[in-house]
Amino acid sequence: MKRWMILAVALVLPLFGTVGAGEGMWEPKQLPDLEKELKAAGLQLDPATLTDLTGHPMNAVIDLAGCSASFVSPRALVITNHHCSWGTLQYNSTEENDLLKNGFLASTLNEEIPAAPGSRVRVTVEVTDVTDQVTGGLEASLSGAERFDRIEQREKQLIAVCEEDPGHRCRVQGFYGGLQYNLVKQLEIRDVRLVYAPPKSIGVYGGDIDNWMWPRHTGDFSFLRAYVAPDGSPADYAEENVPYEPEHYLRVSTKGVDVGDYVMVVGYPGRTSRYRLPSELENTFEWAYPTTRRIFDRILEIIAEQSVGRPDVELKYAATVSGLNNANKNRQGMLDGYASSGMLERKRETMRALQAWIDSSAERKTEHASTLQALNDLIIKSQATQERDMLLRRLGRSSMLSTARRLYRLSREREKEDADREPGYQERDMVPFRQRLQRMDRRYHPDVDKALWNFYLEEYQKLSADQRVVEFDGFLGLDDPSQLPVRIDAMYAETKLGDTETRLNWIEADRAAFEANDDPFIRLAVVLYDGDREREAEQEAEAGEFQAARSRYMETMLAFLGNRGESVYPDANSSLRVTFGNVRGYQPRDGILYTPFTKIEGIREKHTGEDPFDSPQSQLDLIEAGDYGMLALESIGSVPVNFLSDVDTTGGNSGSPTLNGRGELVGLLFDGTYDSINSDWDFNTETTRSIHVDIRYALWVMSKIDKARNVLEELGVDLTVPGD
Amino acid sequence: MKRWMILAVALVLPLFGTVGAGEGMWEPKQLPDLEKELKAAGLQLDPATLTDLTGHPMNAVIDLAGCSASFVSPRALVITNHHCSWGTLQYNSTEENDLLKNGFLASTLNEEIPAAPGSRVRVTVEVTDVTDQVTGGLEASLSGAERFDRIEQREKQLIAVCEEDPGHRCRVQGFYGGLQYNLVKQLEIRDVRLVYAPPKSIGVYGGDIDNWMWPRHTGDFSFLRAYVAPDGSPADYAEENVPYEPEHYLRVSTKGVDVGDYVMVVGYPGRTSRYRLPSELENTFEWAYPTTRRIFDRILEIIAEQSVGRPDVELKYAATVSGLNNANKNRQGMLDGYASSGMLERKRETMRALQAWIDSSAERKTEHASTLQALNDLIIKSQATQERDMLLRRLGRSSMLSTARRLYRLSREREKEDADREPGYQERDMVPFRQRLQRMDRRYHPDVDKALWNFYLEEYQKLSADQRVVEFDGFLGLDDPSQLPVRIDAMYAETKLGDTETRLNWIEADRAAFEANDDPFIRLAVVLYDGDREREAEQEAEAGEFQAARSRYMETMLAFLGNRGESVYPDANSSLRVTFGNVRGYQPRDGILYTPFTKIEGIREKHTGEDPFDSPQSQLDLIEAGDYGMLALESIGSVPVNFLSDVDTTGGNSGSPTLNGRGELVGLLFDGTYDSINSDWDFNTETTRSIHVDIRYALWVMSKIDKARNVLEELGVDLTVPGD
Repeated sequence: MKRWMILAVALVLPLFGTVGAGEGMWEPKQLPDLEKELKAAGLQLDPATLTDLTGHPMNAVIDLAGCSASFVSPRALVITNHHCSWGTLQYNSTEENDLLKNGFLASTLNEEIPAAPGSRVRVTVEVTDVTDQVTGGLEASLSGAERFDRIEQREKQLIAVCEEDPGHRCRVQGFYGGLQYNLVKQLEIRDVRLVYAPPKSIGVYGGDIDNWMWPRHTGDFSFLRAYVAPDGSPADYAEENVPYEPEHYLRVSTKGVDVGDYVMVVGYPGRTSRYRLPSELENTFEWAYPTTRRIFDRILEIIAEQSVGRPDVELKYAATVSGLNNANKNRQGMLDGYASSGMLERKRETMRALQAWIDSSAERKTEHASTLQALNDLIIKSQATQERDMLLRRLGRSSMLSTARRLYRLSREREKEDADREPGYQERDMVPFRQRLQRMDRRYHPDVDKALWNFYLEEYQKLSADQRVVEFDGFLGLDDPSQLPVRIDAMYAETKLGDTETRLNWIEADRAAFEANDDPFIRLAVVLYDGDREREAEQEAEAGEFQAARSRYMETMLAFLGNRGESVYPDANSSLRVTFGNVRGYQPRDGILYTPFTKIEGIREKHTGEDPFDSPQSQLDLIEAGDYGMLALESIGSVPVNFLSDVDTTGGNSGSPTLNGRGELVGLLFDGTYDSINSDWDFNTETTRSIHVDIRYALWVMSKIDKARNVLEELGVDLTVPGD
Repeated sequence: MKRWMILAVALVLPLFGTVGAGEGMWEPKQLPDLEKELKAAGLQLDPATLTDLTGHPMNAVIDLAGCSASFVSPRALVITNHHCSWGTLQYNSTEENDLLKNGFLASTLNEEIPAAPGSRVRVTVEVTDVTDQVTGGLEASLSGAERFDRIEQREKQLIAVCEEDPGHRCRVQGFYGGLQYNLVKQLEIRDVRLVYAPPKSIGVYGGDIDNWMWPRHTGDFSFLRAYVAPDGSPADYAEENVPYEPEHYLRVSTKGVDVGDYVMVVGYPGRTSRYRLPSELENTFEWAYPTTRRIFDRILEIIAEQSVGRPDVELKYAATVSGLNNANKNRQGMLDGYASSGMLERKRETMRALQAWIDSSAERKTEHASTLQALNDLIIKSQATQERDMLLRRLGRSSMLSTARRLYRLSREREKEDADREPGYQERDMVPFRQRLQRMDRRYHPDVDKALWNFYLEEYQKLSADQRVVEFDGFLGLDDPSQLPVRIDAMYAETKLGDTETRLNWIEADRAAFEANDDPFIRLAVVLYDGDREREAEQEAEAGEFQAARSRYMETMLAFLGNRGESVYPDANSSLRVTFGNVRGYQPRDGILYTPFTKIEGIREKHTGEDPFDSPQSQLDLIEAGDYGMLALESIGSVPVNFLSDVDTTGGNSGSPTLNGRGELVGLLFDGTYDSINSDWDFNTETTRSIHVDIRYALWVMSKIDKARNVLEELGVDLTVPGD
């Protein structure tokens, strides 16, 4: 429920249009309705097979929480993107052996090493429509807060019952703005190990420069394995654990795909905003994204300033910097697309058509007339405090303040029955709670944390008096800002929360212990607590109002689109989806065509010898020798590296298997093109393209460069050239 | 002859290879030998018609000195690039009417305005092979200096006789390193007027950003007219002058060309270096170009520093800055291509093949064995002083010093008979000599000139003692550099050469007047004179040696390539050439294709509203309306703006007519792609492409935007859509 609230509150806004080739992140259950389109695109399977989450191929697709993946052997070998294993490679690196640089290959099960703490393999085993149980019987007269509470309570109840099945995690996910709710049940495997990853000079070839770009030449693949206890049940890492035996796994096609061929991607796309109102779109692109860009730029500057001559700082914030650069490029792509695509006007046009449709029937007027206005009013209201809300969120991101707040809140939530606690503070949440506190060290340095906090404080002080938080101002003495630097220095000097042991010890402490403590950040957390809860209650009330208004609006929209004869898919929400289309290049601009495949010769073309274009010499030699083995694609006369398709994907889809018409693995989804960044809001059939790593390139690297013979054998792949 | 010397001395160096589609800047007389290739490419004319310089179409092609152009009406309407009329547009601009910004259209002959001073229209009327007269009977035993003098003397003699025909200019041009000499006779028309140019938001759309780039959307065309005295003879500008009546002019094809169609470009390409040795290539790309880039970067910095808050300085150096940026982009393209293309290795490979061919026959050994070595030795020798030579050239570019030197030298040359004077100081040269002194003001500001001179002086002072010029060091007191800034300031403060009137008055002064004068730059010129002549004599001697060695080497090379069955074309040397090929896109990098045509919709795509992407609103409206008239190309469904072909062009070709297989005008050559910059050294059939403005776009702009009805009428173009 928390997730849903974030979605509603985060003030992001959308676009949609006639569904064209490739558009649509479909719930598996919707696919039989699309049989005609699926067959036309080239699916050879019966669409009905794709609705069975416990059958092949759906049951082989797994959720890595933030990434997608799939089982590719009966011993639970998992294939996903290289960038989805980045944390694990970093976690296992030592000064002597940098796994990112060198890559990693376990030749036997014994050599496989644990993935980063918190790594999970989740297999969706059941999806149940629980709309009635979640929103059934909720009167329209309920206040936003009441609505929010009732829904949250019902969701927690459904989850608790679902999780009585050991080894499983459950969640309730809202679709169509809360018009539909699904209960998703997943088997959660907690012992995940690293099997094989190429060096980053292959796995991240092109780095930040090529990120979001075409042409692309990135070997973005890696292999993990899921382990369970000897009795088959999920268990924490233990030496005696054994490979999980999945019911289904994907077969690799060494033939791959060619231009125009059918492809489908199955995975867990995170979030899209295709049905938002013009007012939300405008606010996002004209306020939220530019603001984020400005703030991220400053954060990057601060980290750079703090990193001068301090490799330890640089290392701790390397992932943050990379993430911010990625986000900035994404935001810039969004803004570029917004400026050139006319999406706002198209969105307004659609809303006018919707309004005209409503107005053209007395019945519809009665039914739907007020829904648009009601939602729009709510949006405008919520935008009134967005600057303040954004800054409070940023201030709350100080590692010290956020740690103190979470710990103190835990002590308060623990005073309640488990079922009544806030999601995130229930017993089921304690493992990730602890892990997060443990991991903080890896990405924290007090000087940077302080510098960032100072920046947010500067911005915060520009707010008008009525937007300020009285307790916060009082604690920091903001009536005399000249003393602020000294106070902040003292807070960071005095706090003990930078110490991992100390943080973990606080987990068991009770409320009184916190309130008696004089750690400055704990004192601040205590001071802020009541106000925090008030603001949270306001946000929850608003979220409740949004749930009511947006689900009504989506009901109207679905009726409108259905009347047009369009199949409608829900916005992405990290649930299992299927998208299908074809291998296709495109014309990004007048005078330029992007071909659908890149080939290994393009790696040599880009090679400069310097990161991120530093191909291993062995690869360059193989390319020069034209040593393609049996992995060449005839139409391009070489081994394909990456390919484009018109399927509909977004963040979270990373690592998703790309399947051909027979359900065989032909690649992995790993990115979208720069021209596709806007597709989160506005899918443009002409220019939205996903980028896949071609399985033939992965196999070529495995066989020719990394000699990963055991992995190839486990995949059941025979690369013997006929006649050899 | 001077020109030839500069070519030899400037230490530039080359590549060549099997002639493929499009490669070759052919002398018209060579074309009948290429009949098979011409017909295969799509020429519909008899190749023999292209050898007649007084017939159609060759006689319609004209030389603008630095640009090419063509007659397109019986009243000498001339079409060339917009960028070839830049100086004229700038010259005629006033504060009230910026012709670059607004464009210009004369609706009647009376409204046509004079082109910038010195503008010329030259029609090549005769090309005679004078090899025998230039080098016949020159013994191999001659010293370099003797050889140089004899050749120069013979050339001057040939020119003098040729120019006895009034209204004509003649020159002797060396081909194949001095193996062949042509005497070129041109009718020189001195009254050139501006007829029509679109605004720069069309004519230079994309500016420096799109320069050398594809996709391109530039309306790089303009119209001039050639005027003569009422009796038909060339004359200076006069009101009573009348339009020249060319014997031949080009017909415009409103149908244009399509993908794959035959095109040929006739014009005056400036310089290529396709037959140079590996040692020259290596030195150019590893010393000369990087050095130039470094120096140009610093010059740009200096001009930027001096321009802060001084719009007058900025304006005076705008053309210089634009030229340096263009040159830097060119050099960077050269260096990028050198790094990635393997051209040095290919060049070495060719030389090994040449050597093997020589070694495989006793006769050839006797004939050719020493030629490579002899040329290479000379190259290495000349490189020994290249740093010094380059800095002395730079120091000599101070407007003050160069003016003083030229004026003083004129007084010395005038002591000789006209025929004995140095080329550039003969009576035939006095008009451009005076014009140059007059024009200096437009691109000169003493502060910038001084700052640049100081920079060159800093570099000069790093030379070792044996490289220094004693008289120069003595005059500037370089033994105590601490006093230098004061001296330089004083020199610039005292000199009167910044004044146009003063400069022009010096033209008539005799030697004694200079030697008695105390203008600091004149005194420096006098002090340097004897040493300058000594260094010049050394360079001339070296040029004489190069002439002997390079012509022998080219004889060997021609024999070698002829033996391979290859037709061989001479390096470009600003003489009239024909290149032919086809309309073709290409693959610049793996994953990207460049389509051969751009269309007007691409203009809207690039439009930002800010220079250089600030299309006129009227054009945007026409594009949005899809108002193509009869000018759309069916295969692209729109009006084509620019197109690519594989013809072989370089600087100097700008403005050249692009003709179809029937000799009709279908476009104007105006640029090459970034991947083609290296083609001056190494023509790569796969990636070398020329960029043309499509005549259909020019006609579309003329008819729809600029309403240049009189020009269209004069072209004989009827754009009435059938049925309208």
